[in-house]
Amino acid sequence: MMKAEIISTGTEILLGNIVDTNTAFIAEQLAMLGIDLYFASTVGDNFDRLLGALKTARERSDLVLMTGGLGPTQGDITREVVACLLEEEMVVDESLKVTLEKFFAGRSIAMSANNLKQAMLIPSAQAIPNNRGTAPGWWAEKEGKIIIAMPGPPAEMQAMWQKFIAPALQNRAGGVILSRTLKTFGMPEGSVDEELSPLLKSTNPTLAIYAKPDGIHLRITAKADSEEAARQLIAEHERAVREIVDKYLWGVDDDDLAAMVAKLLIDKGLTLAVVETFTSGALIQILAHAPESDRFFKGGFYAASDEMKTSLGLVWGSGDMTKTTSAIASLVRDKVHASIGIDIEGYMEKSDDVPMAKVIIAIAGLKSGISLARNFPGRLTNMENRIAYQVLFELKKYLSES
Amino acid sequence: MMKAEIISTGTEILLGNIVDTNTAFIAEQLAMLGIDLYFASTVGDNFDRLLGALKTARERSDLVLMTGGLGPTQGDITREVVACLLEEEMVVDESLKVTLEKFFAGRSIAMSANNLKQAMLIPSAQAIPNNRGTAPGWWAEKEGKIIIAMPGPPAEMQAMWQKFIAPALQNRAGGVILSRTLKTFGMPEGSVDEELSPLLKSTNPTLAIYAKPDGIHLRITAKADSEEAARQLIAEHERAVREIVDKYLWGVDDDDLAAMVAKLLIDKGLTLAVVETFTSGALIQILAHAPESDRFFKGGFYAASDEMKTSLGLVWGSGDMTKTTSAIASLVRDKVHASIGIDIEGYMEKSDDVPMAKVIIAIAGLKSGISLARNFPGRLTNMENRIAYQVLFELKKYLSES
Repeated sequence: MMKAEIISTGTEILLGNIVDTNTAFIAEQLAMLGIDLYFASTVGDNFDRLLGALKTARERSDLVLMTGGLGPTQGDITREVVACLLEEEMVVDESLKVTLEKFFAGRSIAMSANNLKQAMLIPSAQAIPNNRGTAPGWWAEKEGKIIIAMPGPPAEMQAMWQKFIAPALQNRAGGVILSRTLKTFGMPEGSVDEELSPLLKSTNPTLAIYAKPDGIHLRITAKADSEEAARQLIAEHERAVREIVDKYLWGVDDDDLAAMVAKLLIDKGLTLAVVETFTSGALIQILAHAPESDRFFKGGFYAASDEMKTSLGLVWGSGDMTKTTSAIASLVRDKVHASIGIDIEGYMEKSDDVPMAKVIIAIAGLKSGISLARNFPGRLTNMENRIAYQVLFELKKYLSES
Repeated sequence: MMKAEIISTGTEILLGNIVDTNTAFIAEQLAMLGIDLYFASTVGDNFDRLLGALKTARERSDLVLMTGGLGPTQGDITREVVACLLEEEMVVDESLKVTLEKFFAGRSIAMSANNLKQAMLIPSAQAIPNNRGTAPGWWAEKEGKIIIAMPGPPAEMQAMWQKFIAPALQNRAGGVILSRTLKTFGMPEGSVDEELSPLLKSTNPTLAIYAKPDGIHLRITAKADSEEAARQLIAEHERAVREIVDKYLWGVDDDDLAAMVAKLLIDKGLTLAVVETFTSGALIQILAHAPESDRFFKGGFYAASDEMKTSLGLVWGSGDMTKTTSAIASLVRDKVHASIGIDIEGYMEKSDDVPMAKVIIAIAGLKSGISLARNFPGRLTNMENRIAYQVLFELKKYLSES
């Protein structure tokens, strides 16, 4: 089993100016590749400290993943430190130089002498292409240990990772590693954990649980000699997991709840209008950001005041809250000439000192509608997105069934 | 000068399940205290690896700040590792035990035997109170080196830091360190950088620049023997900075743009209604989350479709876009019986392959109004909050002047 370690470089991280998100990305990717990550460190742009950290890392790990410090300035020292540790000399690589010159010529920018650093290699290192910037990465392999140096900007690093580094590491790890993610919503945590616990103990395939805003994700990862065999392992585990979580499941892998709802609406030729009085426009934002939003989303109202409700003609009695919520959903549907209207109402309560959001959701279609009440424990600001995803989950069920 | 180092513990960070935000918080705090941070590491919940990392850290740094691993489970090993490194034995502290028992009794929860771990100390360690949870921190001091162990949940850690750790470290650092932050919006980056550059070179006070969603923050930090002298140093530097950035300045220190606008509106007895057709409800969300939002914010419309605009009676000609935007702002003001109406309209354009959001903002009060056009280069999803803050910045100016 390969042991990996991450070193992020950058004084701006140690000053708290930026949050290092690269480490979490790489960590999750390594877990999928079945590579163990034991340490992650951040070091400033200081030659001796970075050299010391890299030396320690290379002694205790097989694979050291570095981010940052590949820019053209004097403060960018990653290449120099790697060269020093491996006791090799940096020389300009002619083909990298040509690529770099083309990059600058294409943008009509003068290439400075400093940039030439980004065309340098050492004998043990191969360049890793950077499709998003000027700094190629380094794959330096010597004495059975690998050092991979990647650019710091997350978009450049992630593109390089997906296209070049992950396939090479997967190749190296031998065999085939495949993953499949089951996405659920509304699963009651305690009891399901217990039911899943025998499956969580399996070492191949493994099962990992991730809490995300759109619900609990369950990721199955299998390693085998062939793709066929890995798929087989996953399929068996997936069957067992599905038996437990089936009624909470809404998607797999790259499925996105808002995108799925958007597709269902567009395919059926339906449109949507929304009223929120409690959730600060969280559902409006998610729907506005969904793919092809303008094809189905007619708009939304954040009705914070009674005048606003009245001015919209959203007038109703002060009776039963569930009935009222359904009435508003129908009213907004008709008002905006949409096929489906949605209303989210709610209020905060405290029980045993724990704040609790009591929420009523209504979906009003042209022929049928649903309404339901749910409680969300916690502070409202943390709950708004969860409530919005609850609505999307119910809407998906409603659209699939009707 | 004290040298510090951070160790975050937690296998869930190394699996990529959570992003470690504690490091950035502590890093920024240390910078304000004038304490140098040279290394930050993350280690999993493994005794030997954490012991090794802590030993290395304590050898090369004066102050080691640990987060996580103070919970009641067997996987929480921070106390045990510190005790092992300092070769001391953990014993139950009676007063901590009483506090813990009270905490559980107050919530009518049974205290498990595992929780007793959280009442333990070693002779070199003092407990640091935790006002937000069950795990007290440790301040362990021996042979001139300090190890501070804090809980992992950011709310608990930050409260403990602000109330107990920061004052104690400031005391220790000797002298007085004070900071002041000037908050600006809309400053053109390149030219101001240049004008500020002589001030950026100063070592006491220092000037640091932070890019945030609500604009560019400039933080001045001074160190002196007395509070009076530190204030004096800051005041001189602030005067020089203000000369350069004055017209972009909107607040200082803890000032929050949405809260300032909220206060201005409430003090003047004014109310607000908003239409967004371009920014996905970003302004609605910020206003809904402002303090005492229900006292001034009547609501907002995300009008994605013409039917929605029509249904609101927001009808207008297809003429000049600036006039149209002002007309909608007035219409929504009247429609909802608010004192001020706002409309944000916009469209995307590409110039030289760079996407550009062309935005028109109109603010319509009862007596006067303003409208303005601004361009925001970049992808729209990254720009929505910036556009919303631009509106708040203009609204604050409008309210202060009228």
